[in-house]
Amino acid sequence: MSQPNVVIVGAGFAGIRVAKGLSRAKVKVTVIDRSNHHLFQPLLYQVATATLSPAAIASPIRGILRYQANTEVVLAEVTGVNSKSRRVLAGEREFPFDYLVLATGARHSYFGHDEWEKFAPGLKAIPDATAIRQKILYAFELAEMESDATTRENLLRFILVGGGPTGVEMAGAIAELSHRALASDFRRIDPRSAKVILIEAGPRLLNAFPEMLSLKAKKSLERLGVEVMLNARVQGINETGVALENSRIFSRTVIWTAGVMASPVGKWLGVETDRAGRVKVGADLSLPGEPNVFVLGDAAHVLDEKGQPLPGVAPVAMQEGQFIAELIRKRIAGKATPKVFRYFNKGNLATVGRSSAVADLGRVHLSGWLAWMAWLFVHIFYLIGFRNRLIVMTEWAWAYFTFQRGSRLIYSDYRKGVDK
Amino acid sequence: MSQPNVVIVGAGFAGIRVAKGLSRAKVKVTVIDRSNHHLFQPLLYQVATATLSPAAIASPIRGILRYQANTEVVLAEVTGVNSKSRRVLAGEREFPFDYLVLATGARHSYFGHDEWEKFAPGLKAIPDATAIRQKILYAFELAEMESDATTRENLLRFILVGGGPTGVEMAGAIAELSHRALASDFRRIDPRSAKVILIEAGPRLLNAFPEMLSLKAKKSLERLGVEVMLNARVQGINETGVALENSRIFSRTVIWTAGVMASPVGKWLGVETDRAGRVKVGADLSLPGEPNVFVLGDAAHVLDEKGQPLPGVAPVAMQEGQFIAELIRKRIAGKATPKVFRYFNKGNLATVGRSSAVADLGRVHLSGWLAWMAWLFVHIFYLIGFRNRLIVMTEWAWAYFTFQRGSRLIYSDYRKGVDK
Repeated sequence: MSQPNVVIVGAGFAGIRVAKGLSRAKVKVTVIDRSNHHLFQPLLYQVATATLSPAAIASPIRGILRYQANTEVVLAEVTGVNSKSRRVLAGEREFPFDYLVLATGARHSYFGHDEWEKFAPGLKAIPDATAIRQKILYAFELAEMESDATTRENLLRFILVGGGPTGVEMAGAIAELSHRALASDFRRIDPRSAKVILIEAGPRLLNAFPEMLSLKAKKSLERLGVEVMLNARVQGINETGVALENSRIFSRTVIWTAGVMASPVGKWLGVETDRAGRVKVGADLSLPGEPNVFVLGDAAHVLDEKGQPLPGVAPVAMQEGQFIAELIRKRIAGKATPKVFRYFNKGNLATVGRSSAVADLGRVHLSGWLAWMAWLFVHIFYLIGFRNRLIVMTEWAWAYFTFQRGSRLIYSDYRKGVDK
Repeated sequence: MSQPNVVIVGAGFAGIRVAKGLSRAKVKVTVIDRSNHHLFQPLLYQVATATLSPAAIASPIRGILRYQANTEVVLAEVTGVNSKSRRVLAGEREFPFDYLVLATGARHSYFGHDEWEKFAPGLKAIPDATAIRQKILYAFELAEMESDATTRENLLRFILVGGGPTGVEMAGAIAELSHRALASDFRRIDPRSAKVILIEAGPRLLNAFPEMLSLKAKKSLERLGVEVMLNARVQGINETGVALENSRIFSRTVIWTAGVMASPVGKWLGVETDRAGRVKVGADLSLPGEPNVFVLGDAAHVLDEKGQPLPGVAPVAMQEGQFIAELIRKRIAGKATPKVFRYFNKGNLATVGRSSAVADLGRVHLSGWLAWMAWLFVHIFYLIGFRNRLIVMTEWAWAYFTFQRGSRLIYSDYRKGVDK
């Protein structure tokens, strides 16, 4: 009898864990992703703010699964799922499955205002990060050339929309870029006069953290010179800046870190999703009525014990991946399978600038340098591959001691001129 | 009296040396470049073959000249020179000069066959390198998906046109990529079956080197599995491959390393150029009749003692830059200026794969491991910035001991699908 096919779509934190968890199982695993690399998304903002190179936080999927003989990696863009014939579709190619794991993640979402994307790019993949990096660095270059004082101020005003971890981390990183790394590099402008504004619609930053840590993060950001605006709802974004309810902030560089929308898994399956496009799955992460089809990670709407949906963070995705690998292994072996996924929350971390962070470790709340050390070690630890750990540590040590950034690149494409 | 303006166009090896050489001179220096970084071009092929990240071989120009108070850096694309009003034009902006240094380098040239560029990209700037990297890596991915044996072979055949240092170094690097780094990563194809073909129109590789070393380089390449075709003149290139005089080689991945064409300095100045577009300058690198306008580096046609034009390599550009900085310093001080630029050739180096190279050090010719060590140290030594040296050494050590490549990235742009 031939071995069952396990098809995994998406090689993020969830998908990679499922594949690795099946390394010795008697199945044929196919991992499909539209990029050739697994991305360590929690550090993507450091690519966008010129500290790390893209390759430092990316590992080739084939490399990760190289010695896993039962596993095949496919570079393809999945376009749908045929539930009846049990096939995953990627253009004209079809992949038959017995078990299907959909772990396709999320993209940023503009709450129905897709026209904002052009003016306020979001941060999910490497091309996003390098585009934002170029946009930030180029703003300083334009300001240096600008003779009009008001235009110059608008060029040196950076707005982040959304006070979650990415917004907080980006705001701190841009403030330090302008106040430290670029401080002596210009002749006409003073990069230290740049303003960073973080806009949050809710009453506090980092709403997944305890209130005390939200306050600490706000204070740390303000010490770095970041202006934090709470209860501020964005009404519009265009090339001149952001419109709030009663005011308008002019800026050439607006970055979107506010909302995410799950990839179109719900549409592929023709099933119910929540408002963020996440597929509502059962307690074992399977689709209702489809015990061998699972949705994981940012694409899934999973409830915790209190009936709250789990957040779209890496630890949730990793634990879900491990759970599903175990479930498939047991089901194939004819053993009793686990019925309910339980997320074990080891804690939440967010950095604020160069040597400060907040950490919510359940009963223990840390902030400042100690939290930052925790953040540092956790992120190094979970990076895949010795090489990435080495490179990231080297870059961080260099950035820490010199206040400089390692990858300040503006490419000029001779065929098109500088990309603005 | 106000200080004279020295305008330097191009922050490559020549331009940076001029700027640095004027750090204490009583002049106002303006460095104009269309990118924000100085690029260490001799290692660009390692970005194209996935060993190094772009940021490892690039330094922000502002960072290099940060503490040089008399110097300003401008990010702009120069569009012309008005010799009469003594101004450099960049779109609508104008930069008045008393001394002008044009060091704008060269692009690859297709000898009048610009239609080949689409099928056989060349390698001069970072976007070229990342595009070639993606093209090479993607060929293996397509081969893995391909069911037709002939198409698969064409996908796994890589052609380099031009047997100079870049062609030789790229051929070795692609051979090792396929035979080593990717060897275990695929399930349907064997990357070791990939063919690398190096086509050279002349009778030998590396024609700037002694004949003995050309032979050694050819043997080293052949040991790596590269097929070297000499006296082979390319008649046409299209999406199916390369046409020679009496044959046709099918390949999806053709890379152009054959010819260069100087940037349009000659046109800006309205002066005589050689066939490669290089401006013919006098013995002190100035324009005939324009003692304060200089053309340097790959943009200049400079004759050596034997009446031969100097090659377009980094050491020539660096020495020319130093010469011009001294000339300007002396002229401003009212001292006698050097009349004739003399190139001191310290030697030529080219690597062939992972631990072999050829070195022509005048009377001493080296090949193999010793030459490779020389190559290693010279390249690390001339890299600008401690950080770059550290990162490059780390990446090289990792690549050397593991046979792996650090930056195997294929980006999928969700807006456009995978870029082919």
